[in-house]
This record gives sequence, structure tokens and C-alpha cells, in this order.
Amino acid sequence: MTAPRLDVLCIGNAIVDVIADADDAFLADQSLTKGSMRLIDEDEAVRLYGVMRPGREISGGSAGNTAAGLASFGLKAGFIGQVASDELGDIYRHDVESLGVDFLVPARDDVGATARCLILVTPDAQRTMNTFLGAAQRLEARDIDPARVADAAILYLEGYLWDPAEPRAAMQAAIAASRDAGRKIAFTLSDTFCVDRHRDGFWALINMGKIDILFANEAELAAMTGSDDLDTGLAALSAKVATLVVTRSEHGAVAVRGAERVSIPAEPIERLVDTTGAGDLFAAGFLAGEARGLGLEESLKLGAIAAAEVIQHYGARPEKNLKALAGGLLG
Amino acid sequence: MTAPRLDVLCIGNAIVDVIADADDAFLADQSLTKGSMRLIDEDEAVRLYGVMRPGREISGGSAGNTAAGLASFGLKAGFIGQVASDELGDIYRHDVESLGVDFLVPARDDVGATARCLILVTPDAQRTMNTFLGAAQRLEARDIDPARVADAAILYLEGYLWDPAEPRAAMQAAIAASRDAGRKIAFTLSDTFCVDRHRDGFWALINMGKIDILFANEAELAAMTGSDDLDTGLAALSAKVATLVVTRSEHGAVAVRGAERVSIPAEPIERLVDTTGAGDLFAAGFLAGEARGLGLEESLKLGAIAAAEVIQHYGARPEKNLKALAGGLLG
Repeated sequence: MTAPRLDVLCIGNAIVDVIADADDAFLADQSLTKGSMRLIDEDEAVRLYGVMRPGREISGGSAGNTAAGLASFGLKAGFIGQVASDELGDIYRHDVESLGVDFLVPARDDVGATARCLILVTPDAQRTMNTFLGAAQRLEARDIDPARVADAAILYLEGYLWDPAEPRAAMQAAIAASRDAGRKIAFTLSDTFCVDRHRDGFWALINMGKIDILFANEAELAAMTGSDDLDTGLAALSAKVATLVVTRSEHGAVAVRGAERVSIPAEPIERLVDTTGAGDLFAAGFLAGEARGLGLEESLKLGAIAAAEVIQHYGARPEKNLKALAGGLLG
Repeated sequence: MTAPRLDVLCIGNAIVDVIADADDAFLADQSLTKGSMRLIDEDEAVRLYGVMRPGREISGGSAGNTAAGLASFGLKAGFIGQVASDELGDIYRHDVESLGVDFLVPARDDVGATARCLILVTPDAQRTMNTFLGAAQRLEARDIDPARVADAAILYLEGYLWDPAEPRAAMQAAIAASRDAGRKIAFTLSDTFCVDRHRDGFWALINMGKIDILFANEAELAAMTGSDDLDTGLAALSAKVATLVVTRSEHGAVAVRGAERVSIPAEPIERLVDTTGAGDLFAAGFLAGEARGLGLEESLKLGAIAAAEVIQHYGARPEKNLKALAGGLLG
């Protein structure tokens, strides 16, 4: 088996973020649950955009953010996601490719508009996301080239992509191709509402042994396991996946691999601005360490460094060079 | 004469900023003059975008930024500028109207693409701008409704708009309408290269008494007057305009009105991130004071407060509420 060309191949929704400030009263008016992600249709996207404050557009999407983080750490990443042949699609492609990330799916003109996520950032730096999936939900299994998947040491998938049927099939095709090639498969549960929608599907994946590295935050862990107790939740899930990584916001993170359990504190920050992308960038750091063969503690530390960078500014992609921030950790 | 409905009507290029980090070597490679604005055609816009790092898209345009600043100070502003019927045009309109600013020109589908400015921000926070004017240069004199212009206490114009012929005619129509209604006309010289291109036209406007309030930075003052000496330059221009405002970056600003000359220091800042919009927001603050009948010192102070806010983050529009930052200055 030759060494794979890519360190990590990320598959996810190709979404441009539209980020605007909002106050708690606005969230209440709009009946939005702070900190969550909900799917909206085009009519609601137009309506909500019409009442939002001015926005800044920055390419996002959970796995896309992770790919951007991996590139910033100096790793070789690829991205699979569907955009339309429109201005936001052109912007998305530019923002991926200019990082040196391989963008493996061409734009299409028969899939509606490129996806956008209307993100409301409250003064407490929490983000509330309203996603119009548009073209992103039109990713198809035929877009997955098994040879490309086999050429990546790690396949990374976002749970959000489980929502629409076609991309779910594409993800399953990628999982099969990765397994056939003997690569590692990493998966993030993405969001508690996402877990509520697909708990059975996620458990099926896990129980079939399709996931080697599972990412969750505390709330998602609770939603998956039905237990609010961290230790109980960790025990329930870590019995089923080789490596479980649970992020705990300002309380740091914990990873469990068999009998090994490592906890780390959060990295200190100067000011909290926008938590969008914290989980995506934590995954980027951890996967960077994993791809380089580091231990759990070092990989968690890289995750914490990347998450700390991204929450200190608007937008879910790093502004500073993460390899430099990592010091000597990545060699 | 009834009181005008708008405090300030701003006319300028409707441009979406595409902001990316760059280093000095990249500017040298691309033969770009740091801190300047140059006009580029669509081919160059595509080429340069292709080699730039990932961007964040934020509505900009000099006078548009000033209108956003005025709204943040709680004033009633209007904006005239041309966008296309495309995604960036929709974004631009949203970002203007969601601030409560009246956007007085409909989008068109026969004017090419909405304008964009590729802004390279170097580690010293300087911005180097590459503007594809697209639809913005298709603003026409017929877009100027004299009754709308007459309904604004101050008309504010950006020198950049002098570049393309059609908007220049539109601006001249607006100047005539404002003069007929006995309103004040404010103008910014915008950029040294812009002054080099249009020195004679700008002097003609000034000598014909068409400008009541003139904004310039030190470099533009020197380019207009041919003197590097601040006092000489101030004397040459202040003899011709009722109110001259010259911004001096970290050295503050100075205003001259007849025999009155007032200097103020710059506002202290925590960190300099991106100087884009500093001049535009200074103008917003000064015009806010002027519209409310404040004296030179108070108006300059408002300008300095607004400029200090905008240079501490990416993007040329305020993120904080400027009225709140102004304390009691605006009553």
C-alpha cells in the first residue's frame, strides 16, 4: 500500500456563512434556540435575511472549516461538497483552493443556489445558525471517486450531511471506499438537534464499526447516550469507537481510547468574540495530530489551540497560521 | 423651506469588499503600491482574486461606509449608488437597508456585475485596494431625483466617483440640485492617485464654490496643493472652501473654517487590525456633528471616535454602536 497523498479528506456541506450581530430579544422574536443549528427553506432564508442586521460573508460549512484548519496546520487536505455555478459558489471555491486544499467536486448549474448559513451572533459570542442547504444537499454518491477516498489517510465526515438523502448516500459510499482501502474514518455528531434527527442512523454507523474517531461536544454526547453525566456518556460511547473526543468549551476536552483517558484544559484567550467554528477547528487540530502520529494529549492540545484562535474573531476559519501557533508540536 | 427629511445623502460607488491577508512580498510580486487604490478591469479582477488568499466579503464603498457610520450615530442617511441584479448586489442592498439607510437606486440587470474591491491587508494593517467598478460605474444622471437631493441637509460625495464618466455627470446633477435647494455639499478627495487623475476637475469644483466641506488626508492635501508642508497646504485649500477637514492618521485631525483652526489627537486604540474605512468613518463622525450643529472640535472628536472603532477590526463599517461610543456628544 503506497502512502496516501492526502492527510485528510473532508466531506461536508459547502456553505457560505452570513454573519450578523443580534440581541437576545431578536432571537426570542424569531423563536430561535440560541446555540443551535436549524435547517430552513429558501423562503425562510429570504425572510430572515430581510430582518437581520448587516452581514459579513465568509466561507464556512463544518467540514470545510476543518479542511481550512488542517491547511493552516500545514497538512494536505481535500474537500468534497457541492456548490452551484453562482457568485457564492465561486467565492466558496476560491476560499477553499486558495488555502491549498483540493476541491474535488465541480460546480453545477442545475442544483439551485449555493448554500448559505445565516448566523446570528449574540453579545455572549454564542452563534445561532439558520442553514439553507440549497446546492449542498445535491451532493451525490457519483461525486465520490473511491480512488480519491483511498488516497487519504483519514476520511472526515460531518453529521450535518446526514440530513439530506443524496449526500447521506454519498457519505456512505465514501465510508465504504475508505474502509476498503484500510484508512481511518472520523465523524462529528455536529449538533444536538442533528443527533435528535439521526440518533438511530448514527448508532447504526457506530455499531457497525464504521467510525474510528468520533467527535462530540458534551451536549451531543448527552443526546446520543441519554445521559447528562459525562463519565456515563463517555463510557457508553467509548466502548463502541476506537477513539472518542469530547469537547467541553471552557472546560477543555477529553479523549478516550480503550483504557487510556486524557483530559486537557482550554487554551487561554484574550477575548471571546464568536464561537462559530470552535468544534470544527478543534477537530482540525486533533486530526492534524492524529495524521502525524501524535499521542492523545498532543492532538487534544492542537485542537484546543485551533479552537482558541477561531473564537477570538468573527468567522469560522483561522486568521492566524495554526502551524506557527502550534510551536514545535507538529515538528 | 421645510426641514429636510434626511441628514445626509451619500453618493458613491456601491462596492462589496473582498478582504484578504497578504504579505509585503505578495504586494511586490503583484507590483502593487501599498495603501493605494487602483482601478482594475474584470480580467484583472479574476486573475488577482485567483492568487489572493481566502477572503471575507463585507459591503463597502467609501460613501456607503460613511452612510453606515451615520446610521450608527443615529442619523438619517440615504445612499445613491448602482448595483447589478446579482448575489453581491442583493447583499449590498441588504447591508445598506438593514441599517435604516434609504437606498435610492434600483438594481439593474444590464450593467454587468456588482462592483467589488479586492483589499489586501498587510500585517501593518495597511490596506491596498484593487477596485473593479462594474455596475457602480453605470450610475447615471437620470438616477438623481432633484427632490430627493433637496430633501437632505448635506450632500456627501466621494472623489472616487469622479473616475467613470456617467457617475461624474450624476454627481454634477446632484451638486446642482443641492445648491438650488440651499443645502450643504461635502466632498472627499478619496485617494492620492484619484487626486492625480482629477486634480483639475477637483480644483474647478472648489473654485466654482461648489464644495462647502472638503475632506482630505495629509497625502491628498499635498497632492492637491503641491506642498508637503501641512500649514502651506491647509492655507492653500482653506482659502477656497468654507470648511476644510484634514485627517492625519495617528496624529489626529485638523479642521479650518475661516480664521478658526482646531486640532485634535487621535483616539486611543487597543489594537490596529485593518485601516480600511478610517477616512470614511471619520467623515461620518464629522458630518454627524455638522448635521447636529456642533462646533468643529466636537465634530472632529466624533470623527476620531468612529475612525478608531473601524480600524480595530476587519471591514470598513462599524461593528459597535457609534452613538453609544459618542457618549453625550450627540445629545
